[in-house]
Amino acid sequence: MKPVCLIIGAGAGIGGNVGRRFAYEGYHAVLCRRSDQQGLDELVEGIQAEGQDATGFLLNAVEADAIESTIDRVERDIGPIEVVVYNLGAQIGNRTLANTSYKAFEMGWRMATLGLFRLASSVLPLMEKRGTGTLLVTSATAAVRGNAGQHSHAAAMGGRRLLCQSLHAEFGPKGIHIAHVLIDGAVDAPDTLGKMLGAEQFQALRETRGMEHDGLMLPEKIADTYLHLAQQHRSTWTHELDLRSFGDLAWWND
Amino acid sequence: MKPVCLIIGAGAGIGGNVGRRFAYEGYHAVLCRRSDQQGLDELVEGIQAEGQDATGFLLNAVEADAIESTIDRVERDIGPIEVVVYNLGAQIGNRTLANTSYKAFEMGWRMATLGLFRLASSVLPLMEKRGTGTLLVTSATAAVRGNAGQHSHAAAMGGRRLLCQSLHAEFGPKGIHIAHVLIDGAVDAPDTLGKMLGAEQFQALRETRGMEHDGLMLPEKIADTYLHLAQQHRSTWTHELDLRSFGDLAWWND
Amino acid sequence: MKPVCLIIGAGAGIGGNVGRRFAYEGYHAVLCRRSDQQGLDELVEGIQAEGQDATGFLLNAVEADAIESTIDRVERDIGPIEVVVYNLGAQIGNRTLANTSYKAFEMGWRMATLGLFRLASSVLPLMEKRGTGTLLVTSATAAVRGNAGQHSHAAAMGGRRLLCQSLHAEFGPKGIHIAHVLIDGAVDAPDTLGKMLGAEQFQALRETRGMEHDGLMLPEKIADTYLHLAQQHRSTWTHELDLRSFGDLAWWND
Amino acid sequence: MKPVCLIIGAGAGIGGNVGRRFAYEGYHAVLCRRSDQQGLDELVEGIQAEGQDATGFLLNAVEADAIESTIDRVERDIGPIEVVVYNLGAQIGNRTLANTSYKAFEMGWRMATLGLFRLASSVLPLMEKRGTGTLLVTSATAAVRGNAGQHSHAAAMGGRRLLCQSLHAEFGPKGIHIAHVLIDGAVDAPDTLGKMLGAEQFQALRETRGMEHDGLMLPEKIADTYLHLAQQHRSTWTHELDLRSFGDLAWWND
Repeated sequence: MKPVCLIIGAGAGIGGNVGRRFAYEGYHAVLCRRSDQQGLDELVEGIQAEGQDATGFLLNAVEADAIESTIDRVERDIGPIEVVVYNLGAQIGNRTLANTSYKAFEMGWRMATLGLFRLASSVLPLMEKRGTGTLLVTSATAAVRGNAGQHSHAAAMGGRRLLCQSLHAEFGPKGIHIAHVLIDGAVDAPDTLGKMLGAEQFQALRETRGMEHDGLMLPEKIADTYLHLAQQHRSTWTHELDLRSFGDLAWWND
Repeated sequence: MKPVCLIIGAGAGIGGNVGRRFAYEGYHAVLCRRSDQQGLDELVEGIQAEGQDATGFLLNAVEADAIESTIDRVERDIGPIEVVVYNLGAQIGNRTLANTSYKAFEMGWRMATLGLFRLASSVLPLMEKRGTGTLLVTSATAAVRGNAGQHSHAAAMGGRRLLCQSLHAEFGPKGIHIAHVLIDGAVDAPDTLGKMLGAEQFQALRETRGMEHDGLMLPEKIADTYLHLAQQHRSTWTHELDLRSFGDLAWWND
Repeated sequence: MKPVCLIIGAGAGIGGNVGRRFAYEGYHAVLCRRSDQQGLDELVEGIQAEGQDATGFLLNAVEADAIESTIDRVERDIGPIEVVVYNLGAQIGNRTLANTSYKAFEMGWRMATLGLFRLASSVLPLMEKRGTGTLLVTSATAAVRGNAGQHSHAAAMGGRRLLCQSLHAEFGPKGIHIAHVLIDGAVDAPDTLGKMLGAEQFQALRETRGMEHDGLMLPEKIADTYLHLAQQHRSTWTHELDLRSFGDLAWWND
Repeated sequence: MKPVCLIIGAGAGIGGNVGRRFAYEGYHAVLCRRSDQQGLDELVEGIQAEGQDATGFLLNAVEADAIESTIDRVERDIGPIEVVVYNLGAQIGNRTLANTSYKAFEMGWRMATLGLFRLASSVLPLMEKRGTGTLLVTSATAAVRGNAGQHSHAAAMGGRRLLCQSLHAEFGPKGIHIAHVLIDGAVDAPDTLGKMLGAEQFQALRETRGMEHDGLMLPEKIADTYLHLAQQHRSTWTHELDLRSFGDLAWWND
């Protein structure tokens, strides 16, 4: 039975590519996303067409028990979850405080912070019993600084980052590797950036900054780093790293 | 009409002392705490006995509309809120992940993060109209690093800190001073530390570390720094500072 | 005999104003600067004209023994140094790596890092004997992030900041307060910013950003915060704080 | 002609293992260390015995022109430097301020900060002409916080870290990848930790924390991460990551 790499948040960007990369390394990739059964099927079938194992589930992470029951089901029906990737974003664009409703603020927390806590509460005890496992958390610049307009996103991601640290402090010594991956730039991801910008503007961005310019982060290359993190020897683990295109200023520069 | 200094979370520690300090500087101190009408009355009467103005309210900050309606009432009945201090903690002691319920995790966020967001959403628009105001947020070491056992606290405080940053980025240029005060040590506060430890252990700690040893942070001295923050000229504002006893290691040391 | 507040780097900006502020509080202000005897005399006489005590020395901090012998002389001839302010900058403007000579890189270190180490080595043992004292270090954004063009400045200031931390860790428990003050914006200082920009451009900046706009940090207001730091009770010390104008983005924002 | 991976500071720990790892990937490993010709020969011959290319030089990095002339020589005689690893430490053990001489403080800076600046000044222009290259800098916890006793080390490493940031900001957009690797734990390195502890104590540490306990960082595993950094696609670069054993607390925890 293959070990499982479970991805929470698997679109055509980081999530899908990480799944594919791990499948290629011998994992059974289990891809979860909220909607778009067709897009999910294409991802799964794409991986299968390369001779690897993949399964897809639609999963609304903010629904009660959705994450928890998926963990149960995967462990029971597919195999032990060796790597889990929490890849749900909570970016809602820039909004003034006046335009950030309580509901939006809470939704950010449910997606970015509580969802991770629920995932951790479900999957880490299983990994702890096995004495091994990896939890990789995709994060954003908003996890380390709060810009104007980012009230919901920054609060949610700031909470996520420190939760990763407390999880790491408890579970690292038990053999479970937890890493917080700071994505500090625009990803060439049609399902997130593409939808935020619209098809036309996204294509223009690709042509001016992406493609041979390498100014958009290629998700299949990001996946290499996720794989490396999962493969690090336990004497030498990374808890946090940043990623950005060579041409981009780091978040701390101006 | 005196300007108001509103304290959310006013026990016998930082909150009560900050209220008293501002009252002495000519503010009407409005003290809010969740429970203990008698303790609240004593705080208020103690300030009044010194010839200053103070009012007390019992307020359960996690109840719907409790913060919002208090803001309305204070502005209508007492005076314009010039300074507001968010002083609610969310420390629940060290708990393993297995012992941190969803409910506890959510309560931490409601106290530490959402409460501040609700306060900001209610009071900052009023300050914005007046072109002036100060929001001081008491924070904890858990806002900058997640220790084992601190899952709820670190996630909540990490979110609080970045929310302070995003609020500062939006409202600083509008003349509203937002400061994040990192309390990096034990405060000589009978209503919080005292209750957590129990009377006997707290008294022992006072005798060995507090009192003439100055190893417990004196809340009346912390209040001096809160006052200084509120009095900084707008060309020279502090957004973040740390506070600890002279004998304590900083959180980054070991 | 009055306690001494010694300022290393006392021009018409932060240094001179801090000296004047402390003199007004009852310290004997000892002002040291590299050059401009006339400017120094004006500062000293300005303080004396207000009925306070001040003395001035020309001091080239990078010269062997200059800092050390000044400490000796002040302690012997004027009084015990209770507060010392290290206010030497090392900004040389933006320079590419190719345009940053070894000499410039070393000079940055001598001014920003080694000078502080020499000062600390000379004055902290005296303070340790007395069981009290304060060392306030003016610092810059370059102490927390390295921008392009800032090779010399960032390396020097990054070293300065961590040196402040190690000094704090050793000397805090001995009753000596060490604080690192992050100046994160342009100061309305004719002797530094003024000379860098030239008289005309500096005046234009004052008119558009400074003056009633409060977009340039007023050094006499910065001095209030330096004084507050020196007056904090030892149960409640700040090691690091930031300062910037209300309208400026913090260094972490963009 | 093979591309060169040049290591400044190549003992039997991180440096030697990184050299060996890169040699195995097709680089000509050029190993430089200050002393111990025999140890150097063994490293070089060990790599050659595996069928790979390696060359060794004794190099005293603090000597005038030593780094610069080595760069010239390698480029002229061996091949273009594609990857350079700056692996010189500057740890001198814990020393009080009174026991940290000016000379020791300066030596820390010459090793940790100036040496990197000299290396960068020599090699980055060559890489810039080629539009590609990687500079990997080994760093230590002292680069992010200053503990008591670490005056020299913290000042030197804090400067190193911010220099890496300013180099990254200038050279990243030119296609040169600069990464700062935070080694936050004890490395199983006989030439550094072993010599600091002495043979007997080092062996005891290995038996209790190292070996099957994986509590000492294995340098051959660290080398995998160095290689990964050098292989990251330029759309997806890491500037900073931390490394520690699974069982160790991170520097920010206590």
